[in-house]
Amino acid sequence: MTRVLVIGGSDAGISAGLRVHELAPDVRPLLVVADGYPNFSICGIPYHVSGEVSDWRSLAHRTRADLENAGLDLRLNTRAVAVDPDARTVTVTSDRGQEQLVYDQLVIGTGAVPIRPPIEGLNQLGPADGVHLLHTMDDTFALTATLDRSPRSAVVVGGGYIGLEMVEALRTRDIDVTLVERLPQVLSTVDPELGALVADELRAHDVDIRTGTLVHRIERTTAGLKVSGSNGFEKRADVVLVVVGVRPDTALAETAGVKLGVRGAIAVDRGMRTNVDGIFAAGDCVHTYHRLLGQDVYLPLGTTAHKQGRVAGENALGGSREFTGSLGTQVLKVFDLAIARTGLRDHEAVGFRPVTVETVADDHKAYYPGARPIHLRITGDADSGRLLGAQLVGHRDSAVHKRVDTYAAAIHHAMAVADIEDLDLSYTPPLGSPFDAVQTAAQAWVRQAG
Amino acid sequence: MTRVLVIGGSDAGISAGLRVHELAPDVRPLLVVADGYPNFSICGIPYHVSGEVSDWRSLAHRTRADLENAGLDLRLNTRAVAVDPDARTVTVTSDRGQEQLVYDQLVIGTGAVPIRPPIEGLNQLGPADGVHLLHTMDDTFALTATLDRSPRSAVVVGGGYIGLEMVEALRTRDIDVTLVERLPQVLSTVDPELGALVADELRAHDVDIRTGTLVHRIERTTAGLKVSGSNGFEKRADVVLVVVGVRPDTALAETAGVKLGVRGAIAVDRGMRTNVDGIFAAGDCVHTYHRLLGQDVYLPLGTTAHKQGRVAGENALGGSREFTGSLGTQVLKVFDLAIARTGLRDHEAVGFRPVTVETVADDHKAYYPGARPIHLRITGDADSGRLLGAQLVGHRDSAVHKRVDTYAAAIHHAMAVADIEDLDLSYTPPLGSPFDAVQTAAQAWVRQAG
Repeated sequence: MTRVLVIGGSDAGISAGLRVHELAPDVRPLLVVADGYPNFSICGIPYHVSGEVSDWRSLAHRTRADLENAGLDLRLNTRAVAVDPDARTVTVTSDRGQEQLVYDQLVIGTGAVPIRPPIEGLNQLGPADGVHLLHTMDDTFALTATLDRSPRSAVVVGGGYIGLEMVEALRTRDIDVTLVERLPQVLSTVDPELGALVADELRAHDVDIRTGTLVHRIERTTAGLKVSGSNGFEKRADVVLVVVGVRPDTALAETAGVKLGVRGAIAVDRGMRTNVDGIFAAGDCVHTYHRLLGQDVYLPLGTTAHKQGRVAGENALGGSREFTGSLGTQVLKVFDLAIARTGLRDHEAVGFRPVTVETVADDHKAYYPGARPIHLRITGDADSGRLLGAQLVGHRDSAVHKRVDTYAAAIHHAMAVADIEDLDLSYTPPLGSPFDAVQTAAQAWVRQAG
Repeated sequence: MTRVLVIGGSDAGISAGLRVHELAPDVRPLLVVADGYPNFSICGIPYHVSGEVSDWRSLAHRTRADLENAGLDLRLNTRAVAVDPDARTVTVTSDRGQEQLVYDQLVIGTGAVPIRPPIEGLNQLGPADGVHLLHTMDDTFALTATLDRSPRSAVVVGGGYIGLEMVEALRTRDIDVTLVERLPQVLSTVDPELGALVADELRAHDVDIRTGTLVHRIERTTAGLKVSGSNGFEKRADVVLVVVGVRPDTALAETAGVKLGVRGAIAVDRGMRTNVDGIFAAGDCVHTYHRLLGQDVYLPLGTTAHKQGRVAGENALGGSREFTGSLGTQVLKVFDLAIARTGLRDHEAVGFRPVTVETVADDHKAYYPGARPIHLRITGDADSGRLLGAQLVGHRDSAVHKRVDTYAAAIHHAMAVADIEDLDLSYTPPLGSPFDAVQTAAQAWVRQAG
C-alpha cells in the first residue's frame, strides 16, 4: 500500500490528501501541518478581523474530525524541515522532538509566506508594538489582540487583494484607515480605469488613499507609530499592517534538491511532478501553468491550489491527470463593489496583439427597479479575434463574480470574442438582458476592434 | 440597394433590422409592425402589471426615435396579410387601406400567439368580464384596466413561466390568487423536486395552488366569475387570466407557401432561410435548432429570437451566418426565488443515457454571513460523460441566473461533467467557494454516476 505523505494543511495539501483517499479508500495519507489549524480558510481571515465571522473556528473548511473521517491522518504543530529523497524520508520537528517520517510518495504544499518589504524598523517592531504582517491564524490572533485594545487609526501598506479586504475589515471596526500603495493605483491587478472605481468606493467609506507612495520607515514614538515614506508621506497610527504580497515557501523543497522555476517557485510539470522522483508539489509554493500563455507563471490562488492538489493526489497514486491551466480568474469584494478578472490584460498578453474595449452595461433591464451598471473591459487578440481576458466591476449584488465565470469558460475553450454572443445565456428582466452584459461587451469589442 | 422588409416589431424583427443596417449602413430596412408598440419587452409585461414598472412606456427596449436613428423605417399599426413570393410583394392593411410593399429580401418575425384552450365560456367572455389572455401591449392595457377596478380575487390558469410571473404580479397588488395547473406540478419545465421548491415559495406568499386540475368552464354569475374544472374544482373570482403557453403565428408565412416544421412552426435552416427564396424567418414563429439534440424543436425564447434575428438580418444581405443553436437556457424569478435551467432533462435527452444527480451547495462560504443553499440538478450522459443539462433553484440574490450560464457555456463546448471542475472560476468567501457550487454539483454527479 502506497504511503502518501503530505506536507501542508492548507488548500493544496488537504485537496491532495482527500483526493488520494477518495481514489484509494485503503490509503490514509499522513498530513504534516506546521500549526494547529488544518484546512483553515486563509481567504476568510479578513472577515474574522472585521468581526463579521465572530468565531475563528468557523473559518475551518472542515474540522479535524471531518478530515479524519475523510481518511486523513494528521500531525499538527509539526514542522517538516528536511527531505531525503533517496531514503524517502522527511525529518519533522515538534514538541516530541525530531523524527523521520517514511514515504513512498510525497506531496509538498508548503504554500507561501508574506513578503517582508525593506522598511526600516519593520524587523524591530512586531505585534506588541501594533505592527503586523498577516498570513497565518497565529498572525490573525496577534492582530485581533491588537484590535481588541481599540486602536483608533491604522496604516495599511499594500493596496492589493488582501490590503483592500483588510482596509474594509478595519473600517468595519470603525478604525480610521490610511492605505499606502507603491504603485500609481490601488488594485493594480486591474486596469487603471477600473482601479479608479475601486478608489472611489474606498473614499466613499472614508479611506485615506496614498498611491505612488513607498513606505521607508516605521518608528515607535510616544504618540504611537509613525510611518513615513516617499513624497513626504508621514502618518501617525496605532496599528500598521504590512500586506504587500507573498512569495513561495520553498525551503523544504530545496532540501530535497527540487528545482525552482518562475519567480523562485517550485518547478512542476502539469502533472504537479517536481524534478525529483516521488515528490509532487501544488498550490502557492509552485509555479502555475497558464492556459492562455502556454507557459508557467507565479499566480498563487486558492482555487488553483485546490485543483492542483487534486491532480497531485491522483498522480501520487500513479495517475496521469494534468492540471488544465489557470486563467488567473479572481474576484474581490470591497465594501459594496465586486471586482473580477480572468485571462490577460494588454501588458500580460505576450505573443498576442491585444486590444481592450470598455463597455458599461446594466446588470438587468433598466425598466425593472434596481438596475446597476457593470463596467466591463474586454481584451481580445486583434489578429485571431480570440478572447484573451475580461475585467468587470459592479455592485456586489450584480453577479459580477459569476459573469466573469462565463468569460473564463469561454477562454477555457479558446472562443473568439465574436462568438460570445452565440452563447445561450439566461434572461429574465429582473436579472439580465436578452443579450447579457457579458455579450453586449463582446459585441462592443467586435464593433471597435474586431 | 437591397430592399429589406421585416414583418414584426418584436425581438426577432428588430434584431434583424438593426443587424441589416449595422452591416450595410446604406440600407434602411422597413419594419411593418401590427400594433403601435415596436420593440416592447413582452417579458417585462408582468412587472408593469405588478406596478413595479409604473410607466408602460419604459417597457420599450428602444423608443421609436431610437429605432429610426438606428436606421430603421417603421410602419406601425399595419398588418401584413399576404406575401406574393414571385412578385416579391407583401400586402399590408392599415387605416390607410390596403397596399403592396415591394421587397428584395423578406424577414418574417410574426412571433407567437397565446394558446386559447378549449374552456367553455372562454370565447364568450372577455376583458369587460374580467377574463383575459395576455400577450400584447393591448392585452396588457385591458388587464390593467380590469385591475384598476380593484378586484379582490383572481384565478390564473397555467403554471408556467408567464403564469407564475403573473401570480407574483397579482399578489404584489394584494389580490388573492388561485393558480390552476393541468399537470401534477407547477413549472413543469423543471424536475418535480425543484417544482416543489417553487410551490413552497408560492404558498409562502399565500397562493392557493391547484395542480392536476383541468379547467372546464368559466361562467359569469351575479357573484362574479365562476371557474370550474376537474376533481371538483370550483372557484369564484373577480378576474380570470388564462396563460397556458403560445403557438407560432404562421398565418402570413403560409400565404407565401412557406413550409412548416416542428409543432407547426415555420421550418428554417440554421441560416434562418425558409424554403421560399428571399424569405427568412426568426423568433417565436420558427422552429429552433437545438445544439445538443442536433435537431429542430419548438422553444420560443426572447434570447433566441434576438440571436436568430441577427442571423436572418446578416443572411438577408447575402451572408452565410449560422445560428449556433439553442440550449433552452432560461431563468425565472418568482418572489425571492430564481429558477434556471439549460440543456436537457432526462426525458428530453433523446439519443443519450441521461442520469441526473441533485446537490445542495451554498452560494458562498458558510462562515460568511448570509450564505444560502442552491439546489442543483445535473444531467449527464452515462455513456459519454457529457454534460447534458443543469437545473438550479436558489435565492434571487444567489447568482443562480449567471451560474446557469457557466453550464450553458460548458454545454456549448460539449464538455464532460468531469471536466467542469477544471474551469477556472472566481472565488472570494462572500461570493463563492474555492470549488464553486457549479463545480461541487458536477463533482457529485461524477461520484454518483460517472
